[in-house]
Amino acid sequence: MIPVQPDRFLADLHALRAIGASGVGKGVVRPAYSPDDIAARDWLAGRFAEAGLEVAWDPMGSVFGLAPGQSFLMGSHSDTQPEGGWLDGALGVIAALEIARAAREAGGPPLSCVSFQDEEGRFGVTTGSAAWAQALDRETAPTLVDRDGITLAEARAAMGDRLGDWLDPARFTGFMEMHIEQGPLLDQTGGKIGVVEAIVGIRDMVIRFEGQQNHAGTTPMHMRADAFQALSAFNQRINERFRNVVTPATVWTIGHVALHPNAHSVVPGKVAFSMQWRDGDADRLDRMEQIIRDTAAEIAAEKGMGLEFGSMLGVPPVAMDAGHRRALCAAAEAQVPGAWREMPSGALHDASNMARLMPASMLFVPSIGGISHDFAEDTDEADLVTGLKVMADAVARLTS
Amino acid sequence: MIPVQPDRFLADLHALRAIGASGVGKGVVRPAYSPDDIAARDWLAGRFAEAGLEVAWDPMGSVFGLAPGQSFLMGSHSDTQPEGGWLDGALGVIAALEIARAAREAGGPPLSCVSFQDEEGRFGVTTGSAAWAQALDRETAPTLVDRDGITLAEARAAMGDRLGDWLDPARFTGFMEMHIEQGPLLDQTGGKIGVVEAIVGIRDMVIRFEGQQNHAGTTPMHMRADAFQALSAFNQRINERFRNVVTPATVWTIGHVALHPNAHSVVPGKVAFSMQWRDGDADRLDRMEQIIRDTAAEIAAEKGMGLEFGSMLGVPPVAMDAGHRRALCAAAEAQVPGAWREMPSGALHDASNMARLMPASMLFVPSIGGISHDFAEDTDEADLVTGLKVMADAVARLTS
Repeated sequence: MIPVQPDRFLADLHALRAIGASGVGKGVVRPAYSPDDIAARDWLAGRFAEAGLEVAWDPMGSVFGLAPGQSFLMGSHSDTQPEGGWLDGALGVIAALEIARAAREAGGPPLSCVSFQDEEGRFGVTTGSAAWAQALDRETAPTLVDRDGITLAEARAAMGDRLGDWLDPARFTGFMEMHIEQGPLLDQTGGKIGVVEAIVGIRDMVIRFEGQQNHAGTTPMHMRADAFQALSAFNQRINERFRNVVTPATVWTIGHVALHPNAHSVVPGKVAFSMQWRDGDADRLDRMEQIIRDTAAEIAAEKGMGLEFGSMLGVPPVAMDAGHRRALCAAAEAQVPGAWREMPSGALHDASNMARLMPASMLFVPSIGGISHDFAEDTDEADLVTGLKVMADAVARLTS
Repeated sequence: MIPVQPDRFLADLHALRAIGASGVGKGVVRPAYSPDDIAARDWLAGRFAEAGLEVAWDPMGSVFGLAPGQSFLMGSHSDTQPEGGWLDGALGVIAALEIARAAREAGGPPLSCVSFQDEEGRFGVTTGSAAWAQALDRETAPTLVDRDGITLAEARAAMGDRLGDWLDPARFTGFMEMHIEQGPLLDQTGGKIGVVEAIVGIRDMVIRFEGQQNHAGTTPMHMRADAFQALSAFNQRINERFRNVVTPATVWTIGHVALHPNAHSVVPGKVAFSMQWRDGDADRLDRMEQIIRDTAAEIAAEKGMGLEFGSMLGVPPVAMDAGHRRALCAAAEAQVPGAWREMPSGALHDASNMARLMPASMLFVPSIGGISHDFAEDTDEADLVTGLKVMADAVARLTS
């Protein structure tokens, strides 16, 4: 058993929350490569060093705390959404810190920690861990562009000479990530722990329609090529067509819309919008992509508009390691008998990429109201401590 | 006959175009109260003074060139859309300058000029002339806010001590405005001059839906309150319902959309968008407003969302002065026999507000391809000169 200290764990969680605190509830604003994101990583590096771990930075800006020799890796990410919560990512990083620190103090197994960069996808999807796992080409990564036209290379420059070389994955025997569920299932059913069976696949693409910008008073409706009307028609049509393809677990979202020139009295000539869809079945993701591409082409043809698809970002569905899952189930049953379940992850996580490099797994703790990616995100601190103990127990079973 | 000089008129038009030139074709970027807008007004004030006219600025920043005593007023506006053309507004101001200057040189009738402020509606709709005509409350005007949250009072401060008092409308016997059509009718029918019968009414309102911001991967579709989906459903439903109410001349536009937080992986919790509609019949504008309000309330109820309507901006349909129209028709027939027509204006103009203060009228010249509110806006220079001569002839008939 690894003698974790719940109070020290919670104190570090709140210390990290203070870096980039939004001032709204427990909200945090710490997007990838922002000054607060970098400050948080410097603070983590200090904590890793105090715990006797060797600090290492990779070329993306992910920061590691390394035990000597071969070790078991734990962690998550410390960057946040534009309006994020205090636990999304941070929980898994601080749990890793506490478990590795406690193991080292007790002369336990060699455990290492990591906070991956840009998990929230300012430049893509789990950008930092994807580049390490080469799910994202390492040469392409620096050329990715955010919504404001800034390249990853330009943003990353703010990290200066912290950046080092890629680590050899062979030095790690496995990876485990604790995370909030970010959904309503555990909260609604009174579950304390979710042992993740698989992480759903996700695809994300920017779509552009180009029509004709014109005067909103003198252009008859039948002569318009209105980019917003094209977007609205596209959205209604895919909603209808997806009905024949999806399951209750399938989700899709248009979360970002940029109209041009975006003025009251101008028929919008251009729109760029994000189309993102998720499912546990790769074939279903393919069928949805075909519907999206066909429908966009139909709308563009009907309205006489230009159409452009951005590059497709995404990660395939990933099963979690069977041995890790057995250890997590045993630890959960020991800590909270009957109050845990196996479940899929509807959210993408760095563990998806780690599964390409080593045996990987995840456990969830409840999200109050299922709310996340919002300042209102929260979890009962007793549930956070339960998650810490279950993870420490499972890691001990895997490394003893 | 007032001896206008076409070359001097065109030279001044191109000189004004150079202030805020976009560098794309003949495009101009000169939004209300921007440094280039103020520079253009200072240049106009200089030209007015050189023509022997008394320069006066009102509290909104509209700039006048005044003939002594009672006079006939001509003009338009020199501010532009965020991406504007070189003629929208500028044409009417420079035509007024040339006709007043030529009349003064020839000892003709007393003619005055004006360039109204913010016709393009950074802060509302024809803001400058509306405040003078008290179609917009003069105390409310400074509190209007643009898309970036800047108040008119804050933006106006850049004009410093230029600003003066309101002019007494009683010193003017009438108002005439020349403008590009900004639509396809004259261009497609080979017409050289449009004599405006009436200016359509316009209504403009911001609508907000507020749902629940949440994670785009873990929130099942049936549990979402997605603000973009509410906007899309609203748009489709009003498009269907308007069919039973509108005529081929009716137009409506959603030109501005602001999603919050506007990120790929977040179900959008809020949207604010512009709804603008135009028609020559005030009753039809009312019926459309009722459909808009009822439909938005239905969508909000169906999706369990908050709904907020912004303040309604707009101008009622306005008939042009009958005597002015007779003079314009006679002048058009004299200059371009058979190549002119009477027509409504689908675009709103400062003349709508002037009609509240004095007899008012408008004439149109063709827009190539009907394009405006775009860098590509243009008109054949021969057609500009035809417009100048027809307007000079009509003004002479009204002031002799």
